[in-house]
Amino acid sequence: MNDQSQQRPFDDIRNLVEALPAGDAKAAATARDRQSQLIKPPGALARLEDLAVWLAEWKGDPRPKITRPVVTIFAGAHGVAEQGVSAYPSAVNRQMVEAFASGGAAISQLCASQSLGLKVFDLALDMPTGDFTAGPALEEKDCAATIAYGMEAVAGGSDLLCLGEMGIGNTTVAAAIAAGLFGGTGSDWAGRGTGVDDAGLKRKCEVIDQGLALHQDRLDDPLEVLARLGGREFAGLAGAIIAARYERVPVVLDGFPVTAAAAVLFKMNPGAIDHCVLGHVSSERGHQKLADAMGLEPILSLGMRLGEGTGAALAAGVLRAAVDVHNGMATFEEAGISGPA
Amino acid sequence: MNDQSQQRPFDDIRNLVEALPAGDAKAAATARDRQSQLIKPPGALARLEDLAVWLAEWKGDPRPKITRPVVTIFAGAHGVAEQGVSAYPSAVNRQMVEAFASGGAAISQLCASQSLGLKVFDLALDMPTGDFTAGPALEEKDCAATIAYGMEAVAGGSDLLCLGEMGIGNTTVAAAIAAGLFGGTGSDWAGRGTGVDDAGLKRKCEVIDQGLALHQDRLDDPLEVLARLGGREFAGLAGAIIAARYERVPVVLDGFPVTAAAAVLFKMNPGAIDHCVLGHVSSERGHQKLADAMGLEPILSLGMRLGEGTGAALAAGVLRAAVDVHNGMATFEEAGISGPA
Repeated sequence: MNDQSQQRPFDDIRNLVEALPAGDAKAAATARDRQSQLIKPPGALARLEDLAVWLAEWKGDPRPKITRPVVTIFAGAHGVAEQGVSAYPSAVNRQMVEAFASGGAAISQLCASQSLGLKVFDLALDMPTGDFTAGPALEEKDCAATIAYGMEAVAGGSDLLCLGEMGIGNTTVAAAIAAGLFGGTGSDWAGRGTGVDDAGLKRKCEVIDQGLALHQDRLDDPLEVLARLGGREFAGLAGAIIAARYERVPVVLDGFPVTAAAAVLFKMNPGAIDHCVLGHVSSERGHQKLADAMGLEPILSLGMRLGEGTGAALAAGVLRAAVDVHNGMATFEEAGISGPA
Repeated sequence: MNDQSQQRPFDDIRNLVEALPAGDAKAAATARDRQSQLIKPPGALARLEDLAVWLAEWKGDPRPKITRPVVTIFAGAHGVAEQGVSAYPSAVNRQMVEAFASGGAAISQLCASQSLGLKVFDLALDMPTGDFTAGPALEEKDCAATIAYGMEAVAGGSDLLCLGEMGIGNTTVAAAIAAGLFGGTGSDWAGRGTGVDDAGLKRKCEVIDQGLALHQDRLDDPLEVLARLGGREFAGLAGAIIAARYERVPVVLDGFPVTAAAAVLFKMNPGAIDHCVLGHVSSERGHQKLADAMGLEPILSLGMRLGEGTGAALAAGVLRAAVDVHNGMATFEEAGISGPA
């Protein structure tokens, strides 16, 4: 009775992640059957077909629509950024959040170009997380509260959720989370981020290794990895992914940090991110490896490494095309087309 | 004097392909410079940056726009289709052309989804080309006239040309053209097309090898390869690519047949398709190999193998995103963002 009476902040999160609703297998089967009747050789649209069926499953609709796609960005500030792990100062966090709103950022233009909504959540940019080489980045209570905030942030109003992030230093954090969850050291996961030189990359690896060593006793719990080595945008992203599942909103993951946030949930429950698709694989070093570790196949591979949700936003165009083709094409019967000779 | 006095139909085409205009290096340099000033780490948008600069070069505009993108499909019928090289009968050619117009085809839906115009040119579907195992597919005069028709077909009205094709049997033709241009046999280039079985694939390879043997003395001239082993949609596509260059309209190539048509021009003049980008790599067997032979890097790789211009149409969305980002993003100076620490 003793342990159970001490309700801890992560317990609610754990319960939610264990009880995630399943997809709609019937809607998926109906969608797959429809694909087989459309006027094309079987399987000829390949990934577009799979994406339409996947959307059917997670929207619970054999003819899924995408009418309110949204890019949601979480921005956080990192104590570890003071360790010289990034090419840019933390002041850029707020400047970029302003650029998202004013339309000057890449993601703003992509959202306009692709008719995507854009929401930006600034997570205490003036109060960086703790430096994980000296202590936990976040206390359990703060981490759980930020996950809950992320859940609230995406409530209602969207039928496709593209996730993005902003946070100077957060490819260091993503690499630390990946190593904490999947093993290995800084040099297995760290890349150049926004563009550190060789000395910066070496520093980044050392910083990650210090963090892993300091917190090694707590890394068997994915939520502890998130709290100790993570950051607020990671917690917010994890919350958004959980909430989207409960609201039947499919999710498009972006680059290394977003995928690292998803990985926390994947480690808690391997089916927890089945309603997520990987929008792109970035050129940031650890991203492909992390995608491989979770069996995620990117939609796009354009060498991008900007973050902000830019890869997810571009991939949303492919998803929209997939549903338009799925819903709009004629069947062999409707079109009176000859079958195989 | 004798040879020169006998003006032959291909001579005009040869002259046009030799004299293709160069790109606008100054517009490209100005565009590249602008990319370096936009609020992102240098190179972080990778392929999107390269595509914007490429569009600047071939449109002759450092701030290129895409306002009238069009998918243009050429459809042809092939004598060699009677050899059992396809899973579908040639009657499907006209049925699919009707489906393009009525909106039931995949490409119709993609064009609607992506706001692309759609033009379809039906090239004598009721008069198939000759069977290349018995003689030339096209006489030189017919081939040259169809190239000229393709040039006319794309005149005016577009600022991005996505090329597509329809033609039962035309992956056999594409493989024959590829082998004729780059060497090898049927088994080096042939794939399953719309879905032939093992016996069909074997038949396809044999048919290609028969064609290569019959026409072997004339395969050192790319235009002869096009005439003898090709088909009307290939000739039309080649003409469209030539005309687009003269009109400063960048071109998006689609799958194996469209790429094979482009390869004819590439073999005549390696710079002849510098104004073309490969929209996607299909899962049709010879396509990646042909792309590699010409140094073409696909924008998308989604396993598609439908043709119709579907891969090019999807890639047009990425190109539009590239120019919107290029033109719309703020510079570091405009946004007052801190540079590297």
